[in-house]
Amino acid sequence: MVSQDRWSEPDRLVVSYVARCGPNEDPGSVAQGIASEQTVELPLEAVPEHLRSLVVGRVETASRVAGDLCSLRISYSADLLAGDLTQALNLLFGNISMQSDIRVESVGWPAALLDGLPGPGFGPAGLRSLCGAPDDRPLSCAALKPVGSTATELAHKAGCFARGGVDIVKDDHSLADQATAPFRERVDRCLQAVAGRAAYFPNVTAPAGVLEERVALARSAGCAGVLVSPMVVGLDTVRRLTVETGVAILGHPALAGGFLGARHGIAHEVLLGELFRMAGCDGVIFPNVGGRFRFTGEECDAIREALGSPLGRLGPSIPVPAGGLDLASIPDWVHRFGPDTMFLVGGSLYAHDDLEAAARSFAEALAPATAE
Amino acid sequence: MVSQDRWSEPDRLVVSYVARCGPNEDPGSVAQGIASEQTVELPLEAVPEHLRSLVVGRVETASRVAGDLCSLRISYSADLLAGDLTQALNLLFGNISMQSDIRVESVGWPAALLDGLPGPGFGPAGLRSLCGAPDDRPLSCAALKPVGSTATELAHKAGCFARGGVDIVKDDHSLADQATAPFRERVDRCLQAVAGRAAYFPNVTAPAGVLEERVALARSAGCAGVLVSPMVVGLDTVRRLTVETGVAILGHPALAGGFLGARHGIAHEVLLGELFRMAGCDGVIFPNVGGRFRFTGEECDAIREALGSPLGRLGPSIPVPAGGLDLASIPDWVHRFGPDTMFLVGGSLYAHDDLEAAARSFAEALAPATAE
Repeated sequence: MVSQDRWSEPDRLVVSYVARCGPNEDPGSVAQGIASEQTVELPLEAVPEHLRSLVVGRVETASRVAGDLCSLRISYSADLLAGDLTQALNLLFGNISMQSDIRVESVGWPAALLDGLPGPGFGPAGLRSLCGAPDDRPLSCAALKPVGSTATELAHKAGCFARGGVDIVKDDHSLADQATAPFRERVDRCLQAVAGRAAYFPNVTAPAGVLEERVALARSAGCAGVLVSPMVVGLDTVRRLTVETGVAILGHPALAGGFLGARHGIAHEVLLGELFRMAGCDGVIFPNVGGRFRFTGEECDAIREALGSPLGRLGPSIPVPAGGLDLASIPDWVHRFGPDTMFLVGGSLYAHDDLEAAARSFAEALAPATAE
Repeated sequence: MVSQDRWSEPDRLVVSYVARCGPNEDPGSVAQGIASEQTVELPLEAVPEHLRSLVVGRVETASRVAGDLCSLRISYSADLLAGDLTQALNLLFGNISMQSDIRVESVGWPAALLDGLPGPGFGPAGLRSLCGAPDDRPLSCAALKPVGSTATELAHKAGCFARGGVDIVKDDHSLADQATAPFRERVDRCLQAVAGRAAYFPNVTAPAGVLEERVALARSAGCAGVLVSPMVVGLDTVRRLTVETGVAILGHPALAGGFLGARHGIAHEVLLGELFRMAGCDGVIFPNVGGRFRFTGEECDAIREALGSPLGRLGPSIPVPAGGLDLASIPDWVHRFGPDTMFLVGGSLYAHDDLEAAARSFAEALAPATAE
């Protein structure tokens, strides 16, 4: 029989929540409800005495903050995670996702989990060296679109972007293996078109099993990196790619918005900052404030900060603001975000008839002189 | 060059949404925004003429329903999906997840997608025959908990449930490979304890790569089925398990709640009903109304209905209401839900000192006579 003292004490997972707390509810009870729900899924009375303090989440603080909201901090034994990112997701938000008005605001991650995760294999410096870009300016990224175009049409655009001086050309995340631009043909043609002037990252988001084949195909064709949507294929699938293939990974936030509710969900910087980085995304795409999505400036700043802040021994990821960035506004954003950023411009480039000239304006807007 | 006429016309994906529509907004424009966002991610002007009608979602209907809400129907070419469940998730809610107040209410799935998916390999009849249960009563399921218990302790409980007459004993979804009850030891001991009287479904939700090892281990030890959380490991990972391993799959809704917002997300019956079933879940666990979760009776009914309604050539899944079901209420639920249901009772069994007797009461409550 395994001794219960294997449940370690010092290195705990600490989660801060904001949750609804009705006028007649006690914040401590709300916290205790979460602490049990996410661990033993039993009323405390039904939990064997010797397991209560070891396994049930421990309420560290619980207080009413304003109106019907309370602020809670609960710590959990790191042993619950078994060193595993899927269990981390589950412990963080698994069952409580089906309750309401509970938001994970911040997380203190135990070393026992972080030490077993790869983190970004490239990160800002690695991506920079992969593109041959200097380190005194942000990186540039352009997207191939629209879906429905042929591989030849997409490759033509990739060539324009590359000649214009864009660092990374990536697929739109809707490009899969449609008959109009099959994956293999698209990869071959786009690589040929960028001709080493830019890196080309194809979208490998695909069915389980096929994803791995596409990464292998992209690698053997000569792609140094790929685009993937972690929430579509499963966050831990990205970790496996990082560990097993050594490919650079640009993470796309598709589906992630389901978890980013203002009152129910996971804070932007925890999901798109910490979790995407822990899984090994070298760059994380997120919709910049002011575009057609609902992210605020504060949320974007928090994501950017989380991608670069100390996180165990994990290296940083590069933030990739995107979505409705127009060329005219780039210098302002460069000034605000500094060089350790990759700007992804999509539609704005397509508003120009001459894609190559538009790409050149984009690249020039990132040159150090314009950032002053 | 591939001819654009490969984009098929008759077999479209049809999605109905309810979305916010401000007093000065036009429902048609809201619909057009979604139709572009989920496909070309470009303003229509920037989409080549010949692709507009083929690739951009087509607004079928758009009207204001009440206050600031509109009801929209948009159809999409099935060719966008490339027959792939990951693209289906992406097209359904990928980018719009990061907008606000858009809810997918119902979906008409194209045969081109459904025909390539496995659906449940067992379903209600297969699970019944796997357990040796007659077809005139609901199935019973009990959960092993709490995490932190040793494999021996969990096996003891499994034995009690099996002797009491429960059909399926499953792991709590928080049981992974913790040192207190390592996966392999747990599977061996629990299988031995149920001794063929009940089926034992271990939780195989685990890191990518390890998941497959655990399924293989469970299969070779003698488990006919497993528990998995599709939203944690990636929905398409479940499809792959279904196709490649032939194991029976009980789907757990952990994390799914992120998508089940009242105004933003995906309707319960689309996600837990259709999508879980399309991926191959033979049974789908959902929190029954009246428990400690926020699902309403209508939402539960809609999930149950979606699991059994015609869906291409896919077989049905069995609904598994759970979460706060107490033994006393079982006969009412049996009466209401009928025999094609699997009742999952968790905590209520643990409230009794004599687990075997509690399990026996549970099993007896499902016998046909008591349903009258």
